[in-house]
Amino acid sequence: MEPEASATAREVVEAFIARGSTAATAESLTAGLVVAGLADIPGASAMLRGGVVSYASGVKADVLGVSRDLLAEAGSVDAEVARQMADGARRVCGADYAVATTGAAGPEPHDGKPVGTVFVAVSGPRGTTVEGYAFDGDRQAIRAAATQAAFARLLASFRADGKNWE
Amino acid sequence: MEPEASATAREVVEAFIARGSTAATAESLTAGLVVAGLADIPGASAMLRGGVVSYASGVKADVLGVSRDLLAEAGSVDAEVARQMADGARRVCGADYAVATTGAAGPEPHDGKPVGTVFVAVSGPRGTTVEGYAFDGDRQAIRAAATQAAFARLLASFRADGKNWE
Repeated sequence: MEPEASATAREVVEAFIARGSTAATAESLTAGLVVAGLADIPGASAMLRGGVVSYASGVKADVLGVSRDLLAEAGSVDAEVARQMADGARRVCGADYAVATTGAAGPEPHDGKPVGTVFVAVSGPRGTTVEGYAFDGDRQAIRAAATQAAFARLLASFRADGKNWE
Repeated sequence: MEPEASATAREVVEAFIARGSTAATAESLTAGLVVAGLADIPGASAMLRGGVVSYASGVKADVLGVSRDLLAEAGSVDAEVARQMADGARRVCGADYAVATTGAAGPEPHDGKPVGTVFVAVSGPRGTTVEGYAFDGDRQAIRAAATQAAFARLLASFRADGKNWE
C-alpha cells in the first residue's frame, strides 16, 4: 500500500467534486487499494459511493453481474471481465462512473495469464473503455502499478467526457 | 494505511486457511483498508471471498441489505447498522464469516456521533456480535485503529467458534 495519498487520487476526487459527479470501484487484484486511496483524500465522501472487492469469481458474478459463462471460458484476467466489473459496480453502487481492475499479481500466473497482466476498465455515462497492461515487478509493485493505472484511467475518461460536453 | 502487513491480519489469514473457512468484509469508515490488509497476506486468495465498501447509505441498503428505515432513524454510525452490514456481506459474498466497520473518522461528527465512535461487527455461522469503540486521534489514526479492531474481532470470534466445536 501507498504510505501517502496518491497525487492522482487527489486529482480524481477534486475533479469529481467540481463537476458534482460520483464514482465507484470494482477491484480484483488491487483488492481495496483503489477505493482506500480515494477515501484517503479529504472530502472524498462527497463523490465516492463505494466499491466492491470481488476476489472470488462467485462475487464477480453474484454481486457485480459478470457473466458466469465468460468467467468459465476466459478466466478472471480478461478485458471483457474488467468491462463487466466496471459496468456492474456503476450499476449496483448507483454511481456516475466506476473503475475496475483485474489481473495477475503473482507470484504464479493466474487463469493462464502471465504475471503482470492487468486490465483496467472505466464505465461512465458515455460508455465503457478498457485498457490492458503488462507490468513488471513483484506482487506489491504490480498491485501498486494497477492502482495508479486505475486512478489515471478514471481521471482521463472523466476529463475526456467533460471536453465532449463543453 | 499501514506500510507493512498487519501481524493480526496474518493471523486471521492463517487461521482461516487452517480450518478451510472463508471471509468477507463490509466497510464504511475504513473504506477498503480491512480487505486490502487481508489481501496483502500471501495465500489470502484461499480464504478471502471479497468485500463491499459501502461509503454511501444507498450502497449499504442496496448492496448489503441494511434496512433503509434503520439508516434513516439511526444514521450509519450505529451498532445495528454494523450488524446488518456484516450479515449482508456474509450473504452476498457467500462467505463463512464477515467483518463490518462503521464509524465517525472525523474531522466532523457523523450522523450526530462524536469523532472516534466506531462499531465493528462479526457475522458467522454461530451468530453475529458487535463491539463499540471510542478511539482518539486524527482521521488516519481512527481509521487505522478501526482496521486493527476489525482484524482482532474477526480473529477472536473465529477462534471462539473453533473452541466451541472441539
